[in-house]
Amino acid sequence: MSYVVRPWALRDLKDVMRLIRVSSGWKRNRTLREWSCPGVVATVLREDGFGMDPKFGCLVAEVPPDQRSKDGHTVVGYQFHYFSYCTWKGRIVFGEDLYVMPEFRGKGIGTSLLSQVAKLALAHGCSQFRFVLANWNQPAMALYEKLGAINVTARDNWVVWHIEGRAMQELAERVTQ
Amino acid sequence: MSYVVRPWALRDLKDVMRLIRVSSGWKRNRTLREWSCPGVVATVLREDGFGMDPKFGCLVAEVPPDQRSKDGHTVVGYQFHYFSYCTWKGRIVFGEDLYVMPEFRGKGIGTSLLSQVAKLALAHGCSQFRFVLANWNQPAMALYEKLGAINVTARDNWVVWHIEGRAMQELAERVTQ
Repeated sequence: MSYVVRPWALRDLKDVMRLIRVSSGWKRNRTLREWSCPGVVATVLREDGFGMDPKFGCLVAEVPPDQRSKDGHTVVGYQFHYFSYCTWKGRIVFGEDLYVMPEFRGKGIGTSLLSQVAKLALAHGCSQFRFVLANWNQPAMALYEKLGAINVTARDNWVVWHIEGRAMQELAERVTQ
Repeated sequence: MSYVVRPWALRDLKDVMRLIRVSSGWKRNRTLREWSCPGVVATVLREDGFGMDPKFGCLVAEVPPDQRSKDGHTVVGYQFHYFSYCTWKGRIVFGEDLYVMPEFRGKGIGTSLLSQVAKLALAHGCSQFRFVLANWNQPAMALYEKLGAINVTARDNWVVWHIEGRAMQELAERVTQ
C-alpha cells in the first residue's frame, strides 16, 4: 500500500465533498439526534478554501490508480485544519474531520494526515494541536491517545458551548453603540 | 456607568496583558493543578495581534476617566476571538478569555463584549459562536446559558483533546515524505 498525503487542490473538491458526505452519514448513524446541518456545500467550501483569504487548510491522502478503492476512488482520506489562538499557548492548530475510507484503515493513513498537520503547525509557530469531537468517536480518540494526546475534558473538565441561530442573532442585536 | 466596547489598539497592549495576568491568576486559584504556561508574553501578543496577518481579534471595554477603577484603570474588560471553520457549519467564531474586572461586573459589560463579537461574526458569515472553557468557570457558563448558548459537552458529549510538547514533536517527526 503506497499513498501520498498532500494539500488539497481545486480538483479534489468533488472527492472531499464525497468524503465529507460519507463521514457525515457515518456520524448520523451513531448519534441519537439528526444533525441540523448536512455539512457545507461545495460552492461555500470552494470559496472558503481557495479564496483570497482561505479559512482553513485541507490535506488529502491519495493512493495510486492501481490501488484505487472498490468504487474507483484514489482520494481516500482527508483532514481539515485551521490555525487558531489561545492566550495560554499563543498560536495553536485545530484539527477537524479526520476521515479515512474504511477499506484503507489500519495502514497509518490517519496518522500520516495528523503528522503532516503537526509538522505544518510547528513550522507556523503553533505549540498545540487541538481536537473537538463527540466522545462516541472511539476510533479517533483511540488514535489520539496512541499518539500521546490528552483528553482535557476528562483531565481538566474542559467543556464546549456554542450559540447559534436565533440566539446568536439576538445576541448580536443587543449591540446599541 | 457608561462604557464603550471597541477593537483593541496598540496602546491597549499593556492593559490587556494586565487583564490576562489577573484573569490567569484567577484561573490558577480555582484549578487543582498549576498551569504549564503563564500566558503569552507581550511581544508575542503584539506580533500576533498587530502583524501583517493578525491571528486573533480582541475587543476591550473602556470606562471614562471619571469612572476608572480603584487602582486607576479605564480598560476594564476584554474578549479574544478568532475565526475558525467547521465542515458542519462553515465559518464559525471562537470566543476565548472573556474577562471583566470584578468591580465592573453585573453591569452588562460581558454581554456587550459577546454581542459585539456576535455582530462582527455574523457580518463575516459565521453561523456559530463557540466557546471552550473549564467547567469550574460557573460565572461564564451562567452568562452563556442566559444568552441562549448550549453546553454541547452535556448535550452531545463533545470532548476536547490536545497534543503538545514532546508528543506533538514526535508526531511531526513521523512525516517521511
